[in-house]
Amino acid sequence: MENPVSSEFIIGFLGAGQLARMSALQAFRYGMQVAVFSDRPENEPVQFMTPHSFTGSFEDVDSMVEFAKTCDIITLENEFIDSGILKELRERSGTPIFPSPESFELIENKLIEKQTFEKAGIPVTPYKLVRSTEDLKRFGDEYGWPYLLKSSKGGYDGYGNETIHNIEEAEKAFKQLGGDQNRDILAEAFVDFTHELAVQVARNETGFVVYPCCETVQENHICVAVLSPAPVPAKIQERAQQLAIAAVEAIDGRGIFAFEFFLTTTGEVLLNESAPRPHNSGHYTIEGAVTSQFENHVRAVCNMPLGSSGAVKPATAMINLLGTHQRKAVVENAENALNQPNGHLHFYGKLQSKKGRKMAHYTLLGDDMDQTYKKAREVTKDITI
Amino acid sequence: MENPVSSEFIIGFLGAGQLARMSALQAFRYGMQVAVFSDRPENEPVQFMTPHSFTGSFEDVDSMVEFAKTCDIITLENEFIDSGILKELRERSGTPIFPSPESFELIENKLIEKQTFEKAGIPVTPYKLVRSTEDLKRFGDEYGWPYLLKSSKGGYDGYGNETIHNIEEAEKAFKQLGGDQNRDILAEAFVDFTHELAVQVARNETGFVVYPCCETVQENHICVAVLSPAPVPAKIQERAQQLAIAAVEAIDGRGIFAFEFFLTTTGEVLLNESAPRPHNSGHYTIEGAVTSQFENHVRAVCNMPLGSSGAVKPATAMINLLGTHQRKAVVENAENALNQPNGHLHFYGKLQSKKGRKMAHYTLLGDDMDQTYKKAREVTKDITI
Repeated sequence: MENPVSSEFIIGFLGAGQLARMSALQAFRYGMQVAVFSDRPENEPVQFMTPHSFTGSFEDVDSMVEFAKTCDIITLENEFIDSGILKELRERSGTPIFPSPESFELIENKLIEKQTFEKAGIPVTPYKLVRSTEDLKRFGDEYGWPYLLKSSKGGYDGYGNETIHNIEEAEKAFKQLGGDQNRDILAEAFVDFTHELAVQVARNETGFVVYPCCETVQENHICVAVLSPAPVPAKIQERAQQLAIAAVEAIDGRGIFAFEFFLTTTGEVLLNESAPRPHNSGHYTIEGAVTSQFENHVRAVCNMPLGSSGAVKPATAMINLLGTHQRKAVVENAENALNQPNGHLHFYGKLQSKKGRKMAHYTLLGDDMDQTYKKAREVTKDITI
Repeated sequence: MENPVSSEFIIGFLGAGQLARMSALQAFRYGMQVAVFSDRPENEPVQFMTPHSFTGSFEDVDSMVEFAKTCDIITLENEFIDSGILKELRERSGTPIFPSPESFELIENKLIEKQTFEKAGIPVTPYKLVRSTEDLKRFGDEYGWPYLLKSSKGGYDGYGNETIHNIEEAEKAFKQLGGDQNRDILAEAFVDFTHELAVQVARNETGFVVYPCCETVQENHICVAVLSPAPVPAKIQERAQQLAIAAVEAIDGRGIFAFEFFLTTTGEVLLNESAPRPHNSGHYTIEGAVTSQFENHVRAVCNMPLGSSGAVKPATAMINLLGTHQRKAVVENAENALNQPNGHLHFYGKLQSKKGRKMAHYTLLGDDMDQTYKKAREVTKDITI
């Protein structure tokens, strides 16, 4: 690979949303150029940030080859491009892709993902591959109702998941998720948990850095806030960090990865989800860590030395700012948030807002978590977007 | 003005170099779009960061009007565009320009600048407008040889300045600088100083924030390092901050401003230069202050609330990384620098390097200034660009 710290070096992003945008800002900081490929023709956040913009289908290698040849290296902001497509794109363009298609292969299918992590000794939430009405019934009887049905490919933030209270719902959801069309469907037990935790790990050819264990606060399957460090005992934080490191090694990951865990009522740490990319749970690292997840993502995929993941202040709270209205995107009533000396607002540059869409976030640094989190909620509560 | 925290809001930069680039990164962070106007057709740092790119002459209003109409607000990365041109551009496009042409009018001519600051009670380096051989001789006899001759318009980093050792040199330089073509030429005394200091001030319609007083370490009229806070007594730091605030108010400045001072051997603080824009002496604020000069620049020109200028750590050292070779720009041997936990490398995205060109900088945060500065020099000494 060419030296990435060169002004002719072009990093390519498959995907043009806020994760690519915040990563691109870090690439610019190292003097790189940025190229973007999107399946939408215009108005995506990264499309406003570069003259090197390409459009087409993520399922069509042909339409991605020109983009790929423009780039010195390619990375992704989501995990929904098929690993076979990525391999072909890499072969036809000659451009490296990180995380590698081989890493994606191990996590793009939830069944293979769970098997991969189990083999590495990482406890995962109880699950079974279900193929029949009998399987659906047996799972509920064994692990309890309600439980979850998940398509093995393509879901996130609750999409592609169904909550199952009885066998009638199970049969209906099984069909809806494509179970009768040979798609692998997983049944997954509800876990009684006290906290949802997340850990980011950046890894390159020579090593890794692991971020603090944070708590993700969820409402309706959407992350509304992140607290770092998580308000759980140190040994639980360390356990989650160790499992995250084991997980990234299990898939030979290169780039930034996020792992989400349940801390169960019995004190177990179970791996729930993995993301081979910058993740909402790591947005707080922009100001809350010495080196942000986005900067270490760029460093890792370009095989530059990784930066410190250490915390800047004892307490960091991040509030997701979701769209409040169906309208052209504009942030209003943010003065309180902007006036906090250690408060930092990030707005993603999406032209259109709608209720619940991830539009912006706000990070507040402080010395005490309870006070910091309370203040962060208070100064953001009137913001409309 | 439109609400700047809107994804349709476009901030325009007149000038496409590293100062606009680092400012643009902050505009992106607030979801804005960026437009750029340059007098060079391609390969300028900001031209790689936006699809909204315009080219023409800074002396030709016609060629700037289309750019200006595209923007919701315009700012500048240098002070060499004539204030009359800026006024006409503002009138013909209807787009506000900050800092305002009226502020520029007070500082674009070094004579008027000095008079403006003197009127506000700010001590400046001793100077005289010189018109004749007699004036040139008298200045040397009165203030001592050597002294400086400066063109009243257009100089920076030592360009447009001549050091005068005797009357023959004085007469030659007077002509070279345009003194015989009715250009105002200033004679300026050399000041015996112990430190060169600088202070940034961000100011909007409702107030200002002032940054710590830093020391700029110069070699051959080029800033090679910046130390913040400056290793001078607190009352000297405060004096410089007070003079900087008085100076920005004297020109009714809106945006970010930098003021450079001499601390004389007799303990006086004299204003030397002013810059109506982000300044090399403030690059350390990206990591060294809660809110960087670039972010507060964007906030100030868009009239958003200003962020805290407080220091993040007790000692911050910034090293300018100048081009070492005539070659395509690439940073080599930066591993040591990148491996410092609190070290931060910024590379400006210029395609071509040459000896002495400002290509990048490196900021190191620490607890003790001597150690931090020493370490910063040590880990950057082998870097080639």
